[in-house]
Amino acid sequence: MHRLAVGVEYDGTNYNGWQNQTHAPSIQSSLNQALSFVADEPIECIGAGRTDSGVHATGQAAHFDSHADRGSRSWLLGINSNLADDINVLWVKPVSADFHARYSALGRTYRYVIFNRPVRSALSRLGAWWVRQPLDVRAMSVAAGYLVGNHDFSSFRASSCQAKSPVRDIRRLEIQVFGPWVSVECEANAFLHHMVRNVVGSLVRVGRGEAKPEWIRTLLETRDRRLADITAPAAGLILTHVEYPPKFGLDGAIGD
Amino acid sequence: MHRLAVGVEYDGTNYNGWQNQTHAPSIQSSLNQALSFVADEPIECIGAGRTDSGVHATGQAAHFDSHADRGSRSWLLGINSNLADDINVLWVKPVSADFHARYSALGRTYRYVIFNRPVRSALSRLGAWWVRQPLDVRAMSVAAGYLVGNHDFSSFRASSCQAKSPVRDIRRLEIQVFGPWVSVECEANAFLHHMVRNVVGSLVRVGRGEAKPEWIRTLLETRDRRLADITAPAAGLILTHVEYPPKFGLDGAIGD
Repeated sequence: MHRLAVGVEYDGTNYNGWQNQTHAPSIQSSLNQALSFVADEPIECIGAGRTDSGVHATGQAAHFDSHADRGSRSWLLGINSNLADDINVLWVKPVSADFHARYSALGRTYRYVIFNRPVRSALSRLGAWWVRQPLDVRAMSVAAGYLVGNHDFSSFRASSCQAKSPVRDIRRLEIQVFGPWVSVECEANAFLHHMVRNVVGSLVRVGRGEAKPEWIRTLLETRDRRLADITAPAAGLILTHVEYPPKFGLDGAIGD
Repeated sequence: MHRLAVGVEYDGTNYNGWQNQTHAPSIQSSLNQALSFVADEPIECIGAGRTDSGVHATGQAAHFDSHADRGSRSWLLGINSNLADDINVLWVKPVSADFHARYSALGRTYRYVIFNRPVRSALSRLGAWWVRQPLDVRAMSVAAGYLVGNHDFSSFRASSCQAKSPVRDIRRLEIQVFGPWVSVECEANAFLHHMVRNVVGSLVRVGRGEAKPEWIRTLLETRDRRLADITAPAAGLILTHVEYPPKFGLDGAIGD
């Protein structure tokens, strides 16, 4: 039996999220189908992050086990030719049996993209949240500073969140402007359900001038989800990277 | 009667191009419907560039005439709320009766986006041409240099092209790299049918090392379309700007 890791990119627009669903298309089930066809045996892959419906990825990771003897390049070409064009595998690498896409992960990075202009954008509609009011990015950056570190993020978790502990460690929360785009990049050991989208929703409230940056600190300390602001829409969110211990040799992997 | 100019952005993926078609959805007919609804009278708009099926725009321009008395902002909001989310108007401005979106235009700028990576990209599939072989951008830039200026572009026009003269003036043809993206920006007084896509197809041939930059010069001099290379796919092409004489006051217009 071989264990293999894969890097996955997808446009989440037409899927009900990563996770297998009985009656709705998911990234995981599409991938399982392609993998099973290539391996000629039933395969179930396990992903690093269970992205929600409509959320995208350029750096999702997953692992699976197979009896098939194939080289990485042969896996890569075989899998991609059996996937719809809105999902593709970026690389395939053999890993040791103790690798687990979800439990071995040391960190995840998400990027949230806001399109900030008075008029909406047809071309950015599936990959960004349109915010028409001009955003005060400096105020947002100050607010973001309060969230960096090891905190109880109860105020930013979905009511449906099943995690045992609400404590997460945000290592980096950076806001950058590129023309009309405002990008919020967030790296943490792990995330609660809807955490990035709730953080962005609250930061945008600050950016619009409806709350002071210090409101974010109060919100965090209150640990009450009912006080936080709207959940930013799924379309703006992209899982860009999953970090693993160097011993698994997955850093910088890209297919050829 | 008022004459108004509009700036238009669209994702061309789901349309059979700009121009009205009897049995297929077009950008122009969608816009006519929205304009007619807002004006409460039948309206036919005229566009600056007749983009092909699948081609996008961030800076298309058009004009129309209406008896309706409305402010620019009221037009803008009204039109956008009557358009599907893959088309939107960026600005609306009253213009003098001698303005014509097509005939008054002094120049057009297109951007062609290539996604250059060994593996395909789910997220870039609708807005770029995936080229897997590494491109020699320096060679492409040298080749592009031969095309700048006033030339007979017969080698780069579609067989269906109806223009009377094959002479066009390319004022700027620049190639830039942003990570895996290679952008080809082309400004000319006007374009022949498929001209940008044929130019890009031939530049990519040079970028792949299948022809020397000088081949482009020979191609241009030969004035024979049958020698040129493939037409680059529509999805990578975006009409980004239409230039008008300053007297019409349309530069830098953006709605609020």
